[in-house]
Amino acid sequence: MTNTQVTLLQIDNYGPWTVTPEPRRETDLQTMQSRLYADISQFVGARDGYVFFTRFDNMIAVTNGLSREDHERLQESIGNRYPVTLSLGVATGTTPVQALSDATTQLQEAGSAQDKDRREVLEGRVIEDGHRTDGDVQIAHFDVINATGTYTDELNAFDTFIEIEQGYAELMRHMRHTHDSLSFFVGGDNVIVVCPDLEEPDYEEAIHHVAEAVDVDLQVGVGRGDSAHEAGYAAKHALETCRADGIRVELAWE
Amino acid sequence: MTNTQVTLLQIDNYGPWTVTPEPRRETDLQTMQSRLYADISQFVGARDGYVFFTRFDNMIAVTNGLSREDHERLQESIGNRYPVTLSLGVATGTTPVQALSDATTQLQEAGSAQDKDRREVLEGRVIEDGHRTDGDVQIAHFDVINATGTYTDELNAFDTFIEIEQGYAELMRHMRHTHDSLSFFVGGDNVIVVCPDLEEPDYEEAIHHVAEAVDVDLQVGVGRGDSAHEAGYAAKHALETCRADGIRVELAWE
Amino acid sequence: MTNTQVTLLQIDNYGPWTVTPEPRRETDLQTMQSRLYADISQFVGARDGYVFFTRFDNMIAVTNGLSREDHERLQESIGNRYPVTLSLGVATGTTPVQALSDATTQLQEAGSAQDKDRREVLEGRVIEDGHRTDGDVQIAHFDVINATGTYTDELNAFDTFIEIEQGYAELMRHMRHTHDSLSFFVGGDNVIVVCPDLEEPDYEEAIHHVAEAVDVDLQVGVGRGDSAHEAGYAAKHALETCRADGIRVELAWE
Amino acid sequence: MTNTQVTLLQIDNYGPWTVTPEPRRETDLQTMQSRLYADISQFVGARDGYVFFTRFDNMIAVTNGLSREDHERLQESIGNRYPVTLSLGVATGTTPVQALSDATTQLQEAGSAQDKDRREVLEGRVIEDGHRTDGDVQIAHFDVINATGTYTDELNAFDTFIEIEQGYAELMRHMRHTHDSLSFFVGGDNVIVVCPDLEEPDYEEAIHHVAEAVDVDLQVGVGRGDSAHEAGYAAKHALETCRADGIRVELAWE
Repeated sequence: MTNTQVTLLQIDNYGPWTVTPEPRRETDLQTMQSRLYADISQFVGARDGYVFFTRFDNMIAVTNGLSREDHERLQESIGNRYPVTLSLGVATGTTPVQALSDATTQLQEAGSAQDKDRREVLEGRVIEDGHRTDGDVQIAHFDVINATGTYTDELNAFDTFIEIEQGYAELMRHMRHTHDSLSFFVGGDNVIVVCPDLEEPDYEEAIHHVAEAVDVDLQVGVGRGDSAHEAGYAAKHALETCRADGIRVELAWE
Repeated sequence: MTNTQVTLLQIDNYGPWTVTPEPRRETDLQTMQSRLYADISQFVGARDGYVFFTRFDNMIAVTNGLSREDHERLQESIGNRYPVTLSLGVATGTTPVQALSDATTQLQEAGSAQDKDRREVLEGRVIEDGHRTDGDVQIAHFDVINATGTYTDELNAFDTFIEIEQGYAELMRHMRHTHDSLSFFVGGDNVIVVCPDLEEPDYEEAIHHVAEAVDVDLQVGVGRGDSAHEAGYAAKHALETCRADGIRVELAWE
Repeated sequence: MTNTQVTLLQIDNYGPWTVTPEPRRETDLQTMQSRLYADISQFVGARDGYVFFTRFDNMIAVTNGLSREDHERLQESIGNRYPVTLSLGVATGTTPVQALSDATTQLQEAGSAQDKDRREVLEGRVIEDGHRTDGDVQIAHFDVINATGTYTDELNAFDTFIEIEQGYAELMRHMRHTHDSLSFFVGGDNVIVVCPDLEEPDYEEAIHHVAEAVDVDLQVGVGRGDSAHEAGYAAKHALETCRADGIRVELAWE
Repeated sequence: MTNTQVTLLQIDNYGPWTVTPEPRRETDLQTMQSRLYADISQFVGARDGYVFFTRFDNMIAVTNGLSREDHERLQESIGNRYPVTLSLGVATGTTPVQALSDATTQLQEAGSAQDKDRREVLEGRVIEDGHRTDGDVQIAHFDVINATGTYTDELNAFDTFIEIEQGYAELMRHMRHTHDSLSFFVGGDNVIVVCPDLEEPDYEEAIHHVAEAVDVDLQVGVGRGDSAHEAGYAAKHALETCRADGIRVELAWE
């Protein structure tokens, strides 16, 4: 049974900071947001977690394997090196949406995202080492079948982008409402979804739904593990099997 | 009349590189993609351009003000410091979609994105300094009205994200098909759109369309200039007027 | 009794890479070297270690607290994101120089720094968790007394730099030959020295030696701990006492 | 005749910032300092300049080709993305030391490096485009003859480092006092020196001096150009000739 540990990372008072004393140059904001995300990706990834850029001022991570001290250390590093600070809410749940919901509540109860006094909150609970199992995390890695041949080498780059965005928007809503899952576009034509205990028919149904709704054809590799990396890496390998064998859904553990 | 210079930046042979000899750790890919984008943002931004992360392996930039030599220098810098290289297609047009379309064709004609031999292509034409005007670029900066109060402090962070994504997906399609414009989510609740010569009714109509289609309420500041930064910075200031005065559409030049 | 765990990090085949197929632009090399060092500093620092840029193609770290798996993970991250790879040699010793010497031998025996076939060596042994003690690491943090008043605000910036470099060069030789210690300039007017079990007279003597030899006046805070960060942070606090009280040598544990 | 444009970059109030409210973690300071330097290296390098990390809180750059607006843009970018700000002093001179000296005075007259009110000073003058010539900058690129064979593959890594540091310390003093030149260690076994109009006998004498004083054998390639990159790249190529032909001094223009 999955037991996903989710951390919500929120930049403190970011909206006001970006326009004080005047609006800041857009490309400098983009650079800072991206490098902040990259640093968090290295920190979380070195402990076998995954983090998704999401909205950049709010980022979502799967942190099975990170302790409370790890979360404090991350806050300290960012606070020492950036002109902004992070507040973190951590929670666990049998579904990723439940965990993320509780993590969000942790922060909301501590104060607004634009509360000028709320800084570096750290609330919530992690899974103790002795309670972790190989079934804690399920990750599904979707991509568009032959995106390069169908889109990238044929349409203009923005129309290709529109197709992939529409596919992502449809998949994200379906997976959240039907399967309590969290879906994230990670570049190229790839979407990584953090799931509870789903089975092959659930994935076949999701793929069918997206094809019907927006005419985008997906395939998916799925993995399980005690961490996002364990599960996600197995999912990547399963996706390679899809690519090689022309299969739509491949579960790493079957 | 707008004369947008658009550059399409495409990582050479990226798909195969990410899985050779084996799939690479996802968080390392995310870190590299984000830092590559951040570097390009600094380079382009220092010359008053804008670049959008788009799909990360394909990025779209508004490069009015960047010369061909600037494009070569960017390729050199990336090639010297990353394990991947970039191909660049540059074009201009009276609409951003036209320019982006031609820039895409430049690359497609040189070879597939996954052509193992295509490396560091640089094709296309820039606007000569003497031919630049203050009306070359029009940038519209949209955001969601009171996103913090309506969503961030109320819903769980993923449901907030879904709302913003649905708003973005709807706006991007509408602006492309109805107004030949290119729309990019830039974090938070912000979308920057690169437009041809649009007027106030066009923006009111776009806002109305998104509200009707997905129930997301937008406001917008619009600016013009000889570069993305000139136009975009004026748009940011106009958006501050919307926030302060409760207006939905503010054009910087009226 | 100190038991320093030292890791030597060496970029594989770097000399040849910097000039193949042609010499690479110097500022791009500087950028890459500095960011590589910064990444290693974050990785090592998050585990309470210290790493010094040293010669950039060869870097020295105090890695008490890092496991063999941590070293592998660091190599993987760098290999996934940079156009170069790292070889690592790890060793422990009752003196830092001894540990560094053994770590060097690990790499030298595996192959030349410019051996075109030697890649991502990982050799050596770490201190097992159960064998770590609070006396494993001793760190001394030296700085120049009132550098800002004496030099920075008075001399031209290069002459200030010369004074500090001469002080560093003298201290580094003395500490290595007399005290088996490793000294590293870390910016500003600061030198961090990794020491065996030294006592107050040893530090007073080192300060006297440098003042006599090159007329540069130093003060020092010294700390001990089971990691470089534990020891080094105590040393920083001790140095603050020197600054506040006008003392030359302050040991955190007395 | 050389006409070197030198910029001194100084972090405002850095000493106090590093210990307020408490001393900051050393590895976080190292990461921030290195990435700040790397960003400046990209900015300056994209305009064909060179920048040297020097003391990290004080950095020296050769900025022939950078305008006053370029300097302002750099300050803006750093101020938008870092928790610190930069003050810049720019000056030109027939010798690099003279230019650096005047650049330093610009900042010293505006306020102390630790003046809590001095922020983002920008003082001085640049060389107007029409006044630039191919002889403005002379760069000498020294390295240790066969450092890998003599030191890296033979001694422990710190003793190799000591040898290179002693060679650098000796060369830096000699070149400053005898030839009004600025010398910077740039990693590996390389030292880049910014010179006035020196000739072959000057370089032979410098090499002889260092060999006599500290028994370190150097070779050097020298180049000239209207920018640091023009001169420095020619110097790199000349150094390759030294390596290939066993010559000690090679001037690119003879």
